[in-house]
Amino acid sequence: MMLHTLLISISLGLIAFQADGSEPASSNVPKAAYPRILNDGSVTFRLKAPEAKQVTLQPGGGDNGLGKKAIPMERGPDGNWSATVPKPVPGFHYYWFVVDGAIVNDPGSEAFFGWGRACSGVEIPEPGVDFHAFRDVPHGEVRAAWFRSKVTSQPRRVMIYTPPGYDQSTEKYPVLYLQHGAGEDERGWTAQGRANFILDNLIAAGKSRPMIVVMSNGYATRAGQAEKPFDFAGFEAVLIEELVPWIDGHYRTVADRDHRALAGLSMGGMQAIKIGLAHLDTFASIGAFSAPVPGKFETKTANGGVFADPAKFNGRVRLFWVGAGTGEGFIDGMKTMHEALEKARIKHVYFESPGTSHEWLTWRRSLHDFVPKLFRQ
Amino acid sequence: MMLHTLLISISLGLIAFQADGSEPASSNVPKAAYPRILNDGSVTFRLKAPEAKQVTLQPGGGDNGLGKKAIPMERGPDGNWSATVPKPVPGFHYYWFVVDGAIVNDPGSEAFFGWGRACSGVEIPEPGVDFHAFRDVPHGEVRAAWFRSKVTSQPRRVMIYTPPGYDQSTEKYPVLYLQHGAGEDERGWTAQGRANFILDNLIAAGKSRPMIVVMSNGYATRAGQAEKPFDFAGFEAVLIEELVPWIDGHYRTVADRDHRALAGLSMGGMQAIKIGLAHLDTFASIGAFSAPVPGKFETKTANGGVFADPAKFNGRVRLFWVGAGTGEGFIDGMKTMHEALEKARIKHVYFESPGTSHEWLTWRRSLHDFVPKLFRQ
Repeated sequence: MMLHTLLISISLGLIAFQADGSEPASSNVPKAAYPRILNDGSVTFRLKAPEAKQVTLQPGGGDNGLGKKAIPMERGPDGNWSATVPKPVPGFHYYWFVVDGAIVNDPGSEAFFGWGRACSGVEIPEPGVDFHAFRDVPHGEVRAAWFRSKVTSQPRRVMIYTPPGYDQSTEKYPVLYLQHGAGEDERGWTAQGRANFILDNLIAAGKSRPMIVVMSNGYATRAGQAEKPFDFAGFEAVLIEELVPWIDGHYRTVADRDHRALAGLSMGGMQAIKIGLAHLDTFASIGAFSAPVPGKFETKTANGGVFADPAKFNGRVRLFWVGAGTGEGFIDGMKTMHEALEKARIKHVYFESPGTSHEWLTWRRSLHDFVPKLFRQ
Repeated sequence: MMLHTLLISISLGLIAFQADGSEPASSNVPKAAYPRILNDGSVTFRLKAPEAKQVTLQPGGGDNGLGKKAIPMERGPDGNWSATVPKPVPGFHYYWFVVDGAIVNDPGSEAFFGWGRACSGVEIPEPGVDFHAFRDVPHGEVRAAWFRSKVTSQPRRVMIYTPPGYDQSTEKYPVLYLQHGAGEDERGWTAQGRANFILDNLIAAGKSRPMIVVMSNGYATRAGQAEKPFDFAGFEAVLIEELVPWIDGHYRTVADRDHRALAGLSMGGMQAIKIGLAHLDTFASIGAFSAPVPGKFETKTANGGVFADPAKFNGRVRLFWVGAGTGEGFIDGMKTMHEALEKARIKHVYFESPGTSHEWLTWRRSLHDFVPKLFRQ
């Protein structure tokens, strides 16, 4: 009886393909017809809420590619509420509905951990662009592994990308430690970011050296202590004292600073700058994607003076990469940093993602630019 | 600014620990205070929906351990609606809210793919029982891998448990193919079922032989064909023609029938019986957990007559395992099958999970009983 009920519930009103050429977003669960990408790149959202008084569509984030404001939805005679966002910026955008004051995920969307919870997300395709798509190339694995942290006293799950052929090879690989943003977790870079497919495609094209990518949770609080937001001391201890040695002990890594990088997006970019530059004996390459730069950036004094001697910095840091989307607020800080670095003749890469906001297409493009520059001889 | 907003949103009203000894369910997202397990094992649900007219709690399934019926929630003066379920059956139970007619996930719950979509779930602990918990033993990995299916023409993700020490060893391992239920997917057995921790704990205790567990999506439609519910022909082709050879080609397996098992829960149990018994050249061991048995089960005629010659069956099948929870409807079919097998002197194992329903504690216990009986010399 349960199976029968289920069968009916997944058959009703979920017609995936229509004659107008529109199609379900690739971020949908199987058979969900909405959100729906229209021929011109617009997207229609729909939610069944027959008794609701008011339903709005809430883009997740102040400068998300779906728009800055809540979007009113209109009730149809069948109890379905809908809204069409005309030609949003391509990329992956978090969103949710608000039904009579309640925050509501879209039953049609796969769940993506963001904003501190399981969140809806919609993939707006960029025509002709598939660097982050599944292609018919050799694929790496994304492995979940667990260890008990002594720092936090809690179990921690870590996601590890191993490149195609890892199991069949005896080679040792360089390692990129890659961090998510605030409110996200260790699943973000693969579920939302498609980091594994980006790496698969770059490696298949000979554009990137095969590498291991370690994606861990950027939140960590020392056992018995209160959590201080954006302090990162707990995570720094986990990363340096526990995770790096654990990865080197369990995977075939080239275990030296030249073959280790630390990068991240938003909060993860702050961590890459703060922790990476404080541990240049561990990491020789650093990437900050859309990282907020708190206060005024001065090369003489920033990060304990690590930039104060440009020749020393240039000799020691193999890659220092900063970038953001041109449609997001955090680009100002990244650009200011870039200009100060340029002026001080500090070697670095500055990247702009045209037209994109503080969202995952910016970070996919960032990763796609960053990775080929890593671990070059 | 976005970070700041986020920070506020995750600080407000989310006090995790209270002096009364109640605590957040382990299935919650970090920092979510509700659902909340009370001292006596009862569970309180809460949802903020200040403008809603009616909110109900819907247990996911006709005989779910939370009860059979929708549970009305009461509005508090702060716009929070709440309901307490007194002493539900322990286990993992799907649920959702209905807010003015809209199906709404709980923002406090992690998302679990069930009922054809991302679904809320609550873990009701069973006092003193930790066979499925993270314990301080060596841990295996859960790997996501991808291949393109020629049968469906689509990419497929498959989840693969490799036992502790797999990378450091040169040993070959037997393989259990383990299927989810209707409306679920390849993530179910680890996210809801904790299969990896169950295996880790059994292996650490010396109760189970180390093995590889392959968890793949039980839905598959031949390219260009319509999907027939509960037909399984597409999945049978994917499993036999593609997945088994692909696993044997990419992992260190003992690639023979004696070292291959097929098991599953509910719909996956139907698949194990139907496909497994039709391919005894591929699988020597079969497990059906809470499988619906359609029609009347007659050993003379069932499954193309495979049971008709008990001596032949007993010689060929190394393990035939059927079981269910005593609190679920499907136990009748499993029991009828057991009695018919018993009468015909067909070797099998029959298992009852005391007090549990058609939910994941039944299937965790089933796996925990089934796995140690596999691949014995």
